[in-house]
Amino acid sequence: MANDTAKQPLLSGFLDPAPQTNKKDAPKRRRLRRCRSAPLAEKVAMYLVMYLGVGTLCFYLVRNQIVGEKTDGVLDAVYFCIVTMTTVGYGDLVPSGVPTKLLACAFVFTGMALVGLVLTKAADYLVEKQEILLVKALHIGQTIGQTEIRKEIEINKVRYKCFVVFAFLLLLIVVGTIFLFAVEKLNLVDAFYCVCSTITTLGYGDKSFSTKAGRVFAIFWILSSTVCLAQLFLYVAELNTESRQRALVKWVLTRKVTTVDLEAADLDDDGVVGAAEFIIYKLKEMGKISQEDISLVMEEFEYLDVDQSGTLSASDIMLAQSSQRWK
Amino acid sequence: MANDTAKQPLLSGFLDPAPQTNKKDAPKRRRLRRCRSAPLAEKVAMYLVMYLGVGTLCFYLVRNQIVGEKTDGVLDAVYFCIVTMTTVGYGDLVPSGVPTKLLACAFVFTGMALVGLVLTKAADYLVEKQEILLVKALHIGQTIGQTEIRKEIEINKVRYKCFVVFAFLLLLIVVGTIFLFAVEKLNLVDAFYCVCSTITTLGYGDKSFSTKAGRVFAIFWILSSTVCLAQLFLYVAELNTESRQRALVKWVLTRKVTTVDLEAADLDDDGVVGAAEFIIYKLKEMGKISQEDISLVMEEFEYLDVDQSGTLSASDIMLAQSSQRWK
Repeated sequence: MANDTAKQPLLSGFLDPAPQTNKKDAPKRRRLRRCRSAPLAEKVAMYLVMYLGVGTLCFYLVRNQIVGEKTDGVLDAVYFCIVTMTTVGYGDLVPSGVPTKLLACAFVFTGMALVGLVLTKAADYLVEKQEILLVKALHIGQTIGQTEIRKEIEINKVRYKCFVVFAFLLLLIVVGTIFLFAVEKLNLVDAFYCVCSTITTLGYGDKSFSTKAGRVFAIFWILSSTVCLAQLFLYVAELNTESRQRALVKWVLTRKVTTVDLEAADLDDDGVVGAAEFIIYKLKEMGKISQEDISLVMEEFEYLDVDQSGTLSASDIMLAQSSQRWK
Repeated sequence: MANDTAKQPLLSGFLDPAPQTNKKDAPKRRRLRRCRSAPLAEKVAMYLVMYLGVGTLCFYLVRNQIVGEKTDGVLDAVYFCIVTMTTVGYGDLVPSGVPTKLLACAFVFTGMALVGLVLTKAADYLVEKQEILLVKALHIGQTIGQTEIRKEIEINKVRYKCFVVFAFLLLLIVVGTIFLFAVEKLNLVDAFYCVCSTITTLGYGDKSFSTKAGRVFAIFWILSSTVCLAQLFLYVAELNTESRQRALVKWVLTRKVTTVDLEAADLDDDGVVGAAEFIIYKLKEMGKISQEDISLVMEEFEYLDVDQSGTLSASDIMLAQSSQRWK
């Protein structure tokens, strides 16, 4: 398949992260991917603002059908909205009329979906941005280039994300506990208990935010701390998957290659295994690609290979595209 | 790379889901994968039983430090444990002493992690089993073979899972509402409101299970309905990802292949693109494999290709493995 003289470009193509022939595409693609999550995060933030706006308006209008510890009309409406959408549900404010109860049901379902969106789209984007600061902080005093930062993040991506979110969560727990102690006048155990009961969305409701200042704080703190804990659970799961995947990759790459493997990898049955054939065989073994993926692309290959030579050349492409596409 | 006579085995290898050379491995691998989730589901079930056992014992021992609407000692302990681990947290029973409060904090965190495990390991396994019944039901009156069932499930996997979980959830909602209406003597709106407030883990607590019969029912119903709703959200997200992935695959396979593509796909720079090279290029474009994956395998390839011919043969393997592994 390849002779000695052809080996150099082949390897440079494989080993260089931005191969020569792709060099002009590579930065474009990266920019595209980076840009994609930013507007998504903005979109989710917009949904969140809209949701809270509509929620506040609705619950403000039916404020007479909400009973419990009240402070200020609008503030209580936002607070009730946040406590409902995060599924904390203290019960310090509860709907009493039929329409308000049904409204709360509608808001909790949409709120859950929205929190899910925040978790998968917006939060991840924000955490990724913080990662850069973390790596810079870890290398404080050293001069470290953009490329090195990017490289270090690439290798430890999920681990650093876990670390960033965990640090944020700790900060939120400490701030929440101190606030409940200082402003809501709870003792330290009760303050910590209320914090735990809130960030896990448990919300028994025996301790909650009942002062005006407390509810203003709660609006921001509840949303960020519940999202933070859920995100941490997501990252830990991701870390777990990743380490299992890495172990599999290591096993696939270090186990002995036998002649049986060579036979199986030799797709064109020419008695030897080319680099590309070997790559496909190993990636399939790692579970990164499936036979179905391969079959799909092969159909396209067969269609393009008009002269049925088993390889594609420029003339194949011209022939295939000048004839009408027949499927 | 391949000539006309070599083409037939090449294509049969690619298009047949179980290629000739792999035929003896394929069923083994499938069996392996099927077996792996069953013990995992059992393991998770065991954890759940252990968790509830320890939880019940703990909360039974500190039952004097739990205040609220009480029925029976052990029953309340199990009920409190379930309400806490699912983060429903009605607040109809709340811890009053310092050790009990801290115990509840510990239980809600571990409970969340456990529910996460149930969601990702056990529930998926159960739903997959139900899928087979669903496909059989859809083809009632027709004779349908095991292979056809398996094939239809493979294509619509996530969609059917959504359907199964959604059906279960509806059933749980109806059963829960009727139960609260009949046994807990709530009116229909309140019963539905309590159901919504529970399955979303909101748990305001103004309506909850306060009778003995209600709490026995709640133990089973709360756990299954909260897991069911969370699993539905997970499947909808999966469906969303899958359909975006499918759109990308379709775009990659139907867009015009240009000579620029050929140049980029030609890894060994021999002027033509072989089937394996084409597959790697397209799968990379689909985002299924990354340059990093390819580079890793290429290192292994280079190491094995002792005679540096650019291809692996049986003699390469023997040479590589007789010499000491140097990395």
